[in-house]
Amino acid sequence: MKFGGTSVADAERIRVVADYVARTVRRGNQVVVAVSAMGKETDDLLHLATQVSNTHPGREMDMLITAGERKAMALLCMALHDLGIDSASFTGSQAEIITDTEHTNAKILEVRGDRLRQALEAGWVPVVGGAQGVSTERDVTFLGRGGTDTTAVALAHALGADACEIYTDVSGVFTSDPRIVPEARRLKRINFEEMLEMCAAGCPKPAMRSVEYARNHRVRLHVRSAFTWEPGTWIEEEDPDMEQAIISAVVSDSSEAKLTVTGVPDRPGIAARLFRALADRSINVDMIEQNVSLAGTTDISFTVPHEDLATAEQVCLGLETEIGAHDVLADPDIATVSIVGAGMKTHAGVSATMFETLASEGINIEMISTSSIRLTCVVRADLAEKAVVALHRAFKLEGE
Amino acid sequence: MKFGGTSVADAERIRVVADYVARTVRRGNQVVVAVSAMGKETDDLLHLATQVSNTHPGREMDMLITAGERKAMALLCMALHDLGIDSASFTGSQAEIITDTEHTNAKILEVRGDRLRQALEAGWVPVVGGAQGVSTERDVTFLGRGGTDTTAVALAHALGADACEIYTDVSGVFTSDPRIVPEARRLKRINFEEMLEMCAAGCPKPAMRSVEYARNHRVRLHVRSAFTWEPGTWIEEEDPDMEQAIISAVVSDSSEAKLTVTGVPDRPGIAARLFRALADRSINVDMIEQNVSLAGTTDISFTVPHEDLATAEQVCLGLETEIGAHDVLADPDIATVSIVGAGMKTHAGVSATMFETLASEGINIEMISTSSIRLTCVVRADLAEKAVVALHRAFKLEGE
Amino acid sequence: MKFGGTSVADAERIRVVADYVARTVRRGNQVVVAVSAMGKETDDLLHLATQVSNTHPGREMDMLITAGERKAMALLCMALHDLGIDSASFTGSQAEIITDTEHTNAKILEVRGDRLRQALEAGWVPVVGGAQGVSTERDVTFLGRGGTDTTAVALAHALGADACEIYTDVSGVFTSDPRIVPEARRLKRINFEEMLEMCAAGCPKPAMRSVEYARNHRVRLHVRSAFTWEPGTWIEEEDPDMEQAIISAVVSDSSEAKLTVTGVPDRPGIAARLFRALADRSINVDMIEQNVSLAGTTDISFTVPHEDLATAEQVCLGLETEIGAHDVLADPDIATVSIVGAGMKTHAGVSATMFETLASEGINIEMISTSSIRLTCVVRADLAEKAVVALHRAFKLEGE
Amino acid sequence: MKFGGTSVADAERIRVVADYVARTVRRGNQVVVAVSAMGKETDDLLHLATQVSNTHPGREMDMLITAGERKAMALLCMALHDLGIDSASFTGSQAEIITDTEHTNAKILEVRGDRLRQALEAGWVPVVGGAQGVSTERDVTFLGRGGTDTTAVALAHALGADACEIYTDVSGVFTSDPRIVPEARRLKRINFEEMLEMCAAGCPKPAMRSVEYARNHRVRLHVRSAFTWEPGTWIEEEDPDMEQAIISAVVSDSSEAKLTVTGVPDRPGIAARLFRALADRSINVDMIEQNVSLAGTTDISFTVPHEDLATAEQVCLGLETEIGAHDVLADPDIATVSIVGAGMKTHAGVSATMFETLASEGINIEMISTSSIRLTCVVRADLAEKAVVALHRAFKLEGE
Repeated sequence: MKFGGTSVADAERIRVVADYVARTVRRGNQVVVAVSAMGKETDDLLHLATQVSNTHPGREMDMLITAGERKAMALLCMALHDLGIDSASFTGSQAEIITDTEHTNAKILEVRGDRLRQALEAGWVPVVGGAQGVSTERDVTFLGRGGTDTTAVALAHALGADACEIYTDVSGVFTSDPRIVPEARRLKRINFEEMLEMCAAGCPKPAMRSVEYARNHRVRLHVRSAFTWEPGTWIEEEDPDMEQAIISAVVSDSSEAKLTVTGVPDRPGIAARLFRALADRSINVDMIEQNVSLAGTTDISFTVPHEDLATAEQVCLGLETEIGAHDVLADPDIATVSIVGAGMKTHAGVSATMFETLASEGINIEMISTSSIRLTCVVRADLAEKAVVALHRAFKLEGE
Repeated sequence: MKFGGTSVADAERIRVVADYVARTVRRGNQVVVAVSAMGKETDDLLHLATQVSNTHPGREMDMLITAGERKAMALLCMALHDLGIDSASFTGSQAEIITDTEHTNAKILEVRGDRLRQALEAGWVPVVGGAQGVSTERDVTFLGRGGTDTTAVALAHALGADACEIYTDVSGVFTSDPRIVPEARRLKRINFEEMLEMCAAGCPKPAMRSVEYARNHRVRLHVRSAFTWEPGTWIEEEDPDMEQAIISAVVSDSSEAKLTVTGVPDRPGIAARLFRALADRSINVDMIEQNVSLAGTTDISFTVPHEDLATAEQVCLGLETEIGAHDVLADPDIATVSIVGAGMKTHAGVSATMFETLASEGINIEMISTSSIRLTCVVRADLAEKAVVALHRAFKLEGE
Repeated sequence: MKFGGTSVADAERIRVVADYVARTVRRGNQVVVAVSAMGKETDDLLHLATQVSNTHPGREMDMLITAGERKAMALLCMALHDLGIDSASFTGSQAEIITDTEHTNAKILEVRGDRLRQALEAGWVPVVGGAQGVSTERDVTFLGRGGTDTTAVALAHALGADACEIYTDVSGVFTSDPRIVPEARRLKRINFEEMLEMCAAGCPKPAMRSVEYARNHRVRLHVRSAFTWEPGTWIEEEDPDMEQAIISAVVSDSSEAKLTVTGVPDRPGIAARLFRALADRSINVDMIEQNVSLAGTTDISFTVPHEDLATAEQVCLGLETEIGAHDVLADPDIATVSIVGAGMKTHAGVSATMFETLASEGINIEMISTSSIRLTCVVRADLAEKAVVALHRAFKLEGE
Repeated sequence: MKFGGTSVADAERIRVVADYVARTVRRGNQVVVAVSAMGKETDDLLHLATQVSNTHPGREMDMLITAGERKAMALLCMALHDLGIDSASFTGSQAEIITDTEHTNAKILEVRGDRLRQALEAGWVPVVGGAQGVSTERDVTFLGRGGTDTTAVALAHALGADACEIYTDVSGVFTSDPRIVPEARRLKRINFEEMLEMCAAGCPKPAMRSVEYARNHRVRLHVRSAFTWEPGTWIEEEDPDMEQAIISAVVSDSSEAKLTVTGVPDRPGIAARLFRALADRSINVDMIEQNVSLAGTTDISFTVPHEDLATAEQVCLGLETEIGAHDVLADPDIATVSIVGAGMKTHAGVSATMFETLASEGINIEMISTSSIRLTCVVRADLAEKAVVALHRAFKLEGE
């Protein structure tokens, strides 16, 4: 069980969450809660830091930011006491969540949790400050944005919990974005691999890092609403006996842009030179495609995040002469459209259906990328929503 | 050096304070800073606690409230780094400020401060979270409102500092309240005893508790402005060689009310019965006066804080029959006017001057209370300001 | 279209909402937005008012509180401009929402809205500050908590909109509280009368006042999620051609307590005397039940809100002698359980099913109250959840 | 009387300010109060605007920002009511402060103030929202940062007040910065011209714009502390009968940097070309100095704000060839030191004393600029404090 972000936005929400924890305890469950900071407190603290200084030593930043979770955990404990539930708050250090020393983005090395086990045995509800730990050098560390989900999964694993519930502002994972496809349906379950592919393809929640941690440690996740409290979506291992939907979801992402370097001589080492230069500037390249022409030259296209487009273009232009390229074309107006589904592995014709559907809508495919359970096409940005609607219908995701 | 309250109200003020610390360090001083929470953060946290719960376990309250100082200390360190000053933040626990276990109002038992000494030796500026410590049971504790002044004094004592500077929103201690006496003058120095009498007589700053700690450990205080940075008022031991002003200040206080129990038989034990009953209801009685009449009965008058008047009246009425009193009179419309000065001890006629001055203004004195260096009169509330102005003039406090 | 409460909690949410408005406009819709204050701003302003003063003149309170909506509306306009959508903000006064002069809880008298119509004709999106208007005496007025829903409905009516969308933190109206009945189902549609009965029976959202306004002016409401944006629940007039579910929802409420006055002589005027006395103390009595005994005396039971129980008990005790009652019994440990459904009107046996279901669970019914489409029973508080679960199953509300 | 910035930082300060207003009213004064937003609210609102949008239409910005003063004025009115003082709040529009249409930085065109006069005649205290007005096109306008001082001065003028009191966090205007010169003294009075020269030379308070408005309309200002309430500094017209101090203050400023363009041919139009190019980039040039060498070339030095140094250097380098310059030298490590005093006009030898003082401290003068009552020297930045201390002593400003 984890509560964070919107779910503890303010005092009223803390009381609502305490009420829910109390109901769960009274039904005979042992509960551990990881809480994140209230509302936008983490943002506010980061803003304060930029206001007071251009220098942000990691040790002080983590001391600053973890104050948010300290407040939330103490307040939730008080609210639980008010409802007659014994509880005690634990900082990351008190919960013995040991991390490396990389401040502001620390990795969990080990969760001891002896004090949590003692509290549980005594019938108490431990409330743990999310996204925080203590480094091997005994300093306070912060796990990064969204780190409370990771704390929750790590605690669930360390304490041998049946499952980890992630309470959030959405009621689960949908077959597509209901803003685009009103008939999109909430999924009852999805396996880890599909969820990770959906994250990679643009699905904003849950945070990829916590899903990875959960898959690696085989912790079942239940993503659900902290507003309606209705059951949400289970993320778990694939059940081989269960029949798989061929396609589980259609996801689009308009956060990337395309760069094409044209007329490059088709020689070994050219691409390596180019992508090394981009990596040196810390630019994350996502999709890459290369077409060799009859004339012995080649065009290399790739996608980068919008905010890196200008830098990436500069890098390419700087290499233009050296690699003998003809031209560099930047194209910010693209979007990706992806279908994800574990059933793709065993069903032929999925890609054909996708391409036919887009063709019949008059949508041109500019790049293609695949994994064993995902198929992604780059299209014009202004056609992406039309593509998503058509694919959702073509794969009959709305039915039940 | 201590910074607190108003002086770190927001990000801009933190940068201003860091600039001032940097100037001080660059002039060759070793500096330790105790910071309190920013602006009204402590109030906000207390309000949050009342919003989420009626139950406020001390351990969780202290975890909650000390988050404010954690933020301020981390931010001040960042701002110092930005100015090229090496600094590190220390929680009360990291600074080894050991307290008793009385949560929300803990007392300092010992200040070890080894890590602070190491930091100072390395040329760093330690920034310590104010008003906090670690209990003998290893829990986080809070020293109470205004506790940052106490932290500063305790650190100054433990580290053998020359003096403890208290930066605040006022520029020092005045001969009277300038809202009442515009010609009131800032005092260059005042001794501990006078300052404590002024605190007791209604002077709102500095906090009495920190002055007591300073007197007990012979730490010189310098109360000064964190806005204009001009030199303020030194609070220190009396210098026997220096000529004393007879009177240092005129202070008034309208926070008390008067109760009179009339016609009580003049028998032993009556007063004891009455004041024990008041003490059992936690009512702080300040001044007490008893006049025996020729008829063998007596009137007992005493003052209590305004907010306790109703309860105190109830207590007296409840005892009316038992102690044989004639009547109970509550009078909320009084104020005290006090003159304070170490020179009173060796100068005759001070009280005469005070009484004559009030008389010549037509102000009736209703009760009188004295200490060796203070003389307090109870007068009608609406005449208190007139009394203060007249006394300030009579004792020539405006001159220099 | 209306946005309020949680949905504009912070800057990020304002951008998300602007994005959604922009999508809606680009699909060819004319949109008017009513926004409430961000997050807990209204609470914060009320708290500030209690901090500065015990006196709260209505004119100044409304000036203070409406500042929250002013901020939200200006910010949402900026965010819309950023997305290329022309928009302009309008205060209640600029939108010509005329109210009476009852400050802090004003009623809408008339919505002129000429400037909104001009803005719409010019292709702009008007963003209106929620819960505010201008009184007939030209002062700023506030419509009360939850007033933004009322503003939205009033604008929808005045401007002849097809429907009024209420975006909130829940995704619609459920057949029961999913915290109690995990298999509770979101309703696709519900008629005004059922919704009003559900509000009266304890369903917390939407606000009863706005539903009443909508029913009176025949404005269709669509209650939906501002987090997942999936279609929610339509609240509209009953469609006589459509087959009705017999029961639409099971609702419980534990906010009331019971008082019983026993042994009252069975004479005219006794009850009138009692309930007049309660009304004079502004106590809202909900359910009332009276049983005449063979002995010619009667017991009168009724429910009042928990917070009024002590006062109500005092009132009854004060009348004990006058009305010749035997005893007054206060019982705080009750809850109501209600079933609501338009189909009840035409189906026999609904009440029998309810009573049998409760009986078979061993739950005793203490009081009963009915309307044409609602049936409410008072039960022991600790059995209410069990009752809700059993009734939800008995009326097969989980199926689809 | 005006209260702003720090002085109404929070609820407690609003009560303190209300208490002070009440005292002033009870002494028989008619009072009008202009309040600015509480604490850093204006900053917070601006930050919100940058968070939600890159587009900031002036009309919406002013609607947003003026919400801060609305809140403060309503709260102050409530606090005054609590103390038995009748008061009413007025927005800029209700106070009939008419401005031009330049949003976010509007200029006052006219103050009608009929409603304020009526309120005063009825014995009420009008509380006016600072820094706001209504444009000639009936939109809400904001006067810019620090605009509450301007509102206060404009109201004092329009209502024929004796004086305008500016309550702030400093206790007046000092002969120098006490952080640098601890023996700096608060000035009892200073004339408008001196104050304006001090503002121009780097004195941070009061805001230059309000001093200019006060001089133009002959409104006496009293700058004083809202913490100690002691009398501060009067800013008024020069009294020809009063003996003038030769020098009133020593001010330094390290916010500027120096640029030197060397070896420019000594031809007409060269400087014009250079400074037009700088003006076209909106760079504010402060001091300018030109030395013609024997060789017929000249060096042009000038100062610009630090933040414009890089742009200004670029502009000069871009013109290097065109104007035939030899080199462009940027020097960020300078500071200005200024002496200001109305007595300079009639006393010879002031400049000689300044130069001798700097020389005897071994401080080199790099540029000189004068007005009739100010003398400014550019020196190395790290010597500026030494220069200020020496000049303060040389002109005997510490004496009284």
